Amino acid sequence: MSSSISCNATDLIPLLSGGGNATAVEAAASFICGRFDLISGKFTDAAYAIDNTYLLFSAYLVFAMQLGFAMLCAGSVRAKNTMNIMLTNVIDAAAGGLFYYLFGFAFAYGAPSNGFIGKHFFGMNDFPAPTFDYPFFLYQWTFAIAAAGITSGSIAERTQFVAYLIYSSFLTGLVYPIVSHWFWSSDGWASPARSENLLFQSGVIDFAGSGVVHMVGGIAGLWGALIEGPRIGRFEHRGKPAQLRGHSATLVVLGTFLLWFGWYGFNPGSFATIYKSYGETPGSSFYGQWSAVGRTAVTTTLAGCSAALTTLFGKRLIDGYWNVTDVCNGLLGGFAAITSGCSVVEPWAAVICGFVAAWVLMGFNKLADKLKFDDPLEAAQLHGGCGAWGIIFTGLFADKTYVSEIYGGEPDRPFGLFMGGGGRLLAAHVVQIVVISAWVSVTMGTLFFGLHKMNLLRIPSEDEVAGMDPTSHGGLAYMYTEDEIKNGIMVRNNDGESDIGRGV
Amino acid sequence: MSSSISCNATDLIPLLSGGGNATAVEAAASFICGRFDLISGKFTDAAYAIDNTYLLFSAYLVFAMQLGFAMLCAGSVRAKNTMNIMLTNVIDAAAGGLFYYLFGFAFAYGAPSNGFIGKHFFGMNDFPAPTFDYPFFLYQWTFAIAAAGITSGSIAERTQFVAYLIYSSFLTGLVYPIVSHWFWSSDGWASPARSENLLFQSGVIDFAGSGVVHMVGGIAGLWGALIEGPRIGRFEHRGKPAQLRGHSATLVVLGTFLLWFGWYGFNPGSFATIYKSYGETPGSSFYGQWSAVGRTAVTTTLAGCSAALTTLFGKRLIDGYWNVTDVCNGLLGGFAAITSGCSVVEPWAAVICGFVAAWVLMGFNKLADKLKFDDPLEAAQLHGGCGAWGIIFTGLFADKTYVSEIYGGEPDRPFGLFMGGGGRLLAAHVVQIVVISAWVSVTMGTLFFGLHKMNLLRIPSEDEVAGMDPTSHGGLAYMYTEDEIKNGIMVRNNDGESDIGRGV
Amino acid sequence: MSSSISCNATDLIPLLSGGGNATAVEAAASFICGRFDLISGKFTDAAYAIDNTYLLFSAYLVFAMQLGFAMLCAGSVRAKNTMNIMLTNVIDAAAGGLFYYLFGFAFAYGAPSNGFIGKHFFGMNDFPAPTFDYPFFLYQWTFAIAAAGITSGSIAERTQFVAYLIYSSFLTGLVYPIVSHWFWSSDGWASPARSENLLFQSGVIDFAGSGVVHMVGGIAGLWGALIEGPRIGRFEHRGKPAQLRGHSATLVVLGTFLLWFGWYGFNPGSFATIYKSYGETPGSSFYGQWSAVGRTAVTTTLAGCSAALTTLFGKRLIDGYWNVTDVCNGLLGGFAAITSGCSVVEPWAAVICGFVAAWVLMGFNKLADKLKFDDPLEAAQLHGGCGAWGIIFTGLFADKTYVSEIYGGEPDRPFGLFMGGGGRLLAAHVVQIVVISAWVSVTMGTLFFGLHKMNLLRIPSEDEVAGMDPTSHGGLAYMYTEDEIKNGIMVRNNDGESDIGRGV
Repeated sequence: MSSSISCNATDLIPLLSGGGNATAVEAAASFICGRFDLISGKFTDAAYAIDNTYLLFSAYLVFAMQLGFAMLCAGSVRAKNTMNIMLTNVIDAAAGGLFYYLFGFAFAYGAPSNGFIGKHFFGMNDFPAPTFDYPFFLYQWTFAIAAAGITSGSIAERTQFVAYLIYSSFLTGLVYPIVSHWFWSSDGWASPARSENLLFQSGVIDFAGSGVVHMVGGIAGLWGALIEGPRIGRFEHRGKPAQLRGHSATLVVLGTFLLWFGWYGFNPGSFATIYKSYGETPGSSFYGQWSAVGRTAVTTTLAGCSAALTTLFGKRLIDGYWNVTDVCNGLLGGFAAITSGCSVVEPWAAVICGFVAAWVLMGFNKLADKLKFDDPLEAAQLHGGCGAWGIIFTGLFADKTYVSEIYGGEPDRPFGLFMGGGGRLLAAHVVQIVVISAWVSVTMGTLFFGLHKMNLLRIPSEDEVAGMDPTSHGGLAYMYTEDEIKNGIMVRNNDGESDIGRGV
Repeated sequence: MSSSISCNATDLIPLLSGGGNATAVEAAASFICGRFDLISGKFTDAAYAIDNTYLLFSAYLVFAMQLGFAMLCAGSVRAKNTMNIMLTNVIDAAAGGLFYYLFGFAFAYGAPSNGFIGKHFFGMNDFPAPTFDYPFFLYQWTFAIAAAGITSGSIAERTQFVAYLIYSSFLTGLVYPIVSHWFWSSDGWASPARSENLLFQSGVIDFAGSGVVHMVGGIAGLWGALIEGPRIGRFEHRGKPAQLRGHSATLVVLGTFLLWFGWYGFNPGSFATIYKSYGETPGSSFYGQWSAVGRTAVTTTLAGCSAALTTLFGKRLIDGYWNVTDVCNGLLGGFAAITSGCSVVEPWAAVICGFVAAWVLMGFNKLADKLKFDDPLEAAQLHGGCGAWGIIFTGLFADKTYVSEIYGGEPDRPFGLFMGGGGRLLAAHVVQIVVISAWVSVTMGTLFFGLHKMNLLRIPSEDEVAGMDPTSHGGLAYMYTEDEIKNGIMVRNNDGESDIGRGV
Repeated sequence: MSSSISCNATDLIPLLSGGGNATAVEAAASFICGRFDLISGKFTDAAYAIDNTYLLFSAYLVFAMQLGFAMLCAGSVRAKNTMNIMLTNVIDAAAGGLFYYLFGFAFAYGAPSNGFIGKHFFGMNDFPAPTFDYPFFLYQWTFAIAAAGITSGSIAERTQFVAYLIYSSFLTGLVYPIVSHWFWSSDGWASPARSENLLFQSGVIDFAGSGVVHMVGGIAGLWGALIEGPRIGRFEHRGKPAQLRGHSATLVVLGTFLLWFGWYGFNPGSFATIYKSYGETPGSSFYGQWSAVGRTAVTTTLAGCSAALTTLFGKRLIDGYWNVTDVCNGLLGGFAAITSGCSVVEPWAAVICGFVAAWVLMGFNKLADKLKFDDPLEAAQLHGGCGAWGIIFTGLFADKTYVSEIYGGEPDRPFGLFMGGGGRLLAAHVVQIVVISAWVSVTMGTLFFGLHKMNLLRIPSEDEVAGMDPTSHGGLAYMYTEDEIKNGIMVRNNDGESDIGRGV
């Protein structure tokens, strides 16, 4: 085989001019074919290089969402619990890294396996494989820690740190990986990519995880917050719910924008590859997976924008003022909803998706107040509620062409009900909502209940009033003394350690 | 046509050994040519995949600038107006998303059209087209919202929120798109890429938008700030201007670094493609568009660095201390200036560009104080003033080779005056400054004046003194009570809602 | 030469059917070979486009680390010194940009040269060259400013700003570039890529710079902090060290996550290219440099996660509470350690690397307290100590296959001692630690000592007590008055300038 693609005509001339001489012809054919083989191989390599560049940088963006969660959560709690909530976000990533490495990935993607749980690649054994390379592992890890980050908001300001460690590991290492196996592994029972026995001849199209990630995190948070009960002072104020506003709207906006930024890794990155033509032959069309990736970024953007504006005007009507933190939550609700169908719907449908998501969130928040349900970050309402709406939305609006381009299979495979695709996709999606709700309730609900019964879940009320930072985390996040402020100058107290004691 | 590039010599041998037999020869030729056609198609696809990966991630970076603006603005205003300014930045992005989707992009790039305004692709109709794909739309949207973000700084701390909604939509949806059509659409009247009738046989080289983005935002801000007048207390202090310093330099630095980070999407990303050789034949040179993209990142960096250092020492001389927020503004002034010529100048010229930009900004700030012009973010001075300088700079320093590589066309096309390229490029650039100033003054100036006459522009003075957050946005961004601080602990007040009333 | 790859069989048929006619055969051969040459060139161009896209975006990520440092440092100092430390971080980047442009890069990579220092490309002369293009310059600049950023932490809260300007320029422009020449330039005396005379037949494998960047910054900080002495109040509290806690843990967490994010540019980006197959022929394996880049991201992640969890539990045992800022430092220690060997070790080894790094950091911090050594950011302990451990770690755990894939050369080249590769790599690494320590001590130690002797190093103690911001930087970073806080509202004082005076 020739070692170079380029060639010199003087080498080929004698071979072609043999006039039928068998040896020369053989040499000519191998001269030419060897080069074609090399070229074919170079394209394969180019695809690996391009696709993995795209996937790795997408993974980095999704990782940035963890920072977004940390800032959003920090800003949404009271100053006295800031150290606590930020530590949970750091530990989500760190513990999630080890657990997902040891067994989470194996449970999720360890094919060939059964439809319920994977069983290969424990501790990244046999990596890389033809099916999975390191960048794919990294990308999936960033999703696993996002799920845990969602739940942390629901149970903020009142959960023992040890309980947090236990639930976070359980969610990242077991509960979430199993759900992702069902819908995203090629042999998951509800996967749209199975070769046979598709659920309702369709499988579930949860492209980037409105169900797999957001509902899982949201439902887990729902049970956590329900079992813990509301924070002290939240529903004790002459029967009227007090807002217990977070200590910094600046951090909320910072976190929201970082989540928006990271969502461009979350949704458009979920294609995993970008170098793929949708035309019949290579080069026959300017339209390919690169367009679909871009379209996904556009639908994601529009759903968020539409939800943000709807919330802006909706809350103005309801509350009488222009509320930036509610707009941020509305925006995130739009993103959580579009995450399921982002790749298979038209931009105009994404605008509808966001509009409805905003009302879903406002409605669930109203309901939560009525039911005296306290979720400091609205995480159950936002990720659970809007996530569920997004799953329905995909069943209604998935486009025939896009579904077939991305998921292939039979020409008559189901698509969105409103787009003329019948009700089978929608039916599969209703099943997804039911099954995720049930699974997370059974696993995480039981876990939270067990911790509650063992008095490991909620902190003592005196610690809650004093704040978790001074009682469990060595002091407050911000260090100023009365004296500093009186002088208009923030001169720090020289003795940081004694402040801890004073704070308790 | 063969379906695979790789081939087996045993298949080709009989075809080549026919010794002139017509059928065999035909088969051999089609065997070989079919593969070449496939290869050609695969390269086309590879270019789409590579270029769109590069363009999408550049768009994500530019989007991060919106977060940068939000933090920079938040830190530069007083704490009582933080919620307001952050909301405007979120809404810029959200409203901008919908308006740019509905008609902004169509006005900007809807070719074929006339030289003034585009007229296709409303609501992303006919997307993707051979000329434009989704990633390009996303990239352009991030530019549109950047323009609105600039103006928000000029009118901060005193503008009614409804006025903000109106002007932001008008700017993102109409005023800015039309300007970008003139200079960046291939049929814009001042485009350097038109096939004929180039302005001064040159067209305007505003590569990433010192004029199209920064001057547009800056001039709009100039009129807004002029018509609203200065903030209460700004020029009433015994004739000496008071600084009304922002509440957090940390947020200013955070925002500045995020803008720097995002500028690597703004400038180097404006090539839109990276897989393009500048050599005569493919592979003949290590030098190609990838080098030009990298060079653009380097010139951008150096202009900012040079402006930052100049400001550091300049302000030290003037004010007697080392000022970090002024250094941040100087840095951004250097970026705003280099944005026009970043792709067509040498690194050493970028150092000059930044040096002058710093003095331009310091000079305009001095002038603004003299004229009692109050722009809380110095946005008019920075983006308008340094942007205009950058346009002139390109007319002086554009390099012949770089202009011809990037803009092609006639071998004798004009380039920078100081580089021996004659005065025609500079003349075109002077026209750009005049035309943008006039257009934005007529449209945005009229709009602001009309809002002013209808009493819709400025908030009541009692609201301004109390702050916009307690009066219009439901409360302050930061929640601590006297009690919290007295104890050196930040324990939040349980009743967030009553705080709102107290704040008014 | 043909100008297009695709071809029409009707053109090739007459050429092939000549039956040995010399002219026709020549034309056929050139017809075919011309296309192969074009294809070869297109692949070369594709490699430039892909590799530079990957390298540029990696550089942008590393740049984001500068923001991370700024926030981490700001949060770790007392509020009264925030403006100062943030200015040093901005100036690191800006001054570093100019100095690295003028001569830093030339000293580092100006080959061909001697083993000690480079001598070409001053002021980016002769750029781009076949060996180096603009993106490579940008990438290396981001590394140079990272080194300076490390040192700024060690000498925080007490160093004159002019001294900072001098040391930062000296480090970025001279000391660091020379070290990077030794280990990373192909003609550096300790480079693993030299063609002959490899140190211990191996050279030093410091892939992304545990030694070249982190130890250099850390040892420089060690001398700076030693010569300046501890901050006032740090060791004067009844013999017990006071912590002088930073003013905002939120900024510490923000900075840490940004550094984590940026480290994905630092380590996986250090390959500089991603489009490279490790198989014998192109396309023969799914495994290539893209896998190695991904594996490097995974080892980096796991080392950080492991160090964070170790610190969490370690500090819980020692101090009795769950400490988020210490966990952040532990995490960064894990990253600093894995940076040397990230590309050549297995994921499981990375877990060990992080585990040990956490104890190294805790141990050095204990020692520093014992020796009354005060480093406000623990930078000497973290970057110096964990960096040194990382260098040893690579000598112990470097994998034979990975070393040979990445560094090539002799089949029997040394690798990790514990992996059966003998002690020569470890010996080279011990030499690296000794040589870097000596070089930085001689250069930076002398510089700091000289500044100290000239009374240019440390600020007056009254300035230190009052804070550097009011005394040298025009005022405090945060602006609230007593009155604002009393009313629970942050209404700013209208006269910002007089506050400066009041602050002194």
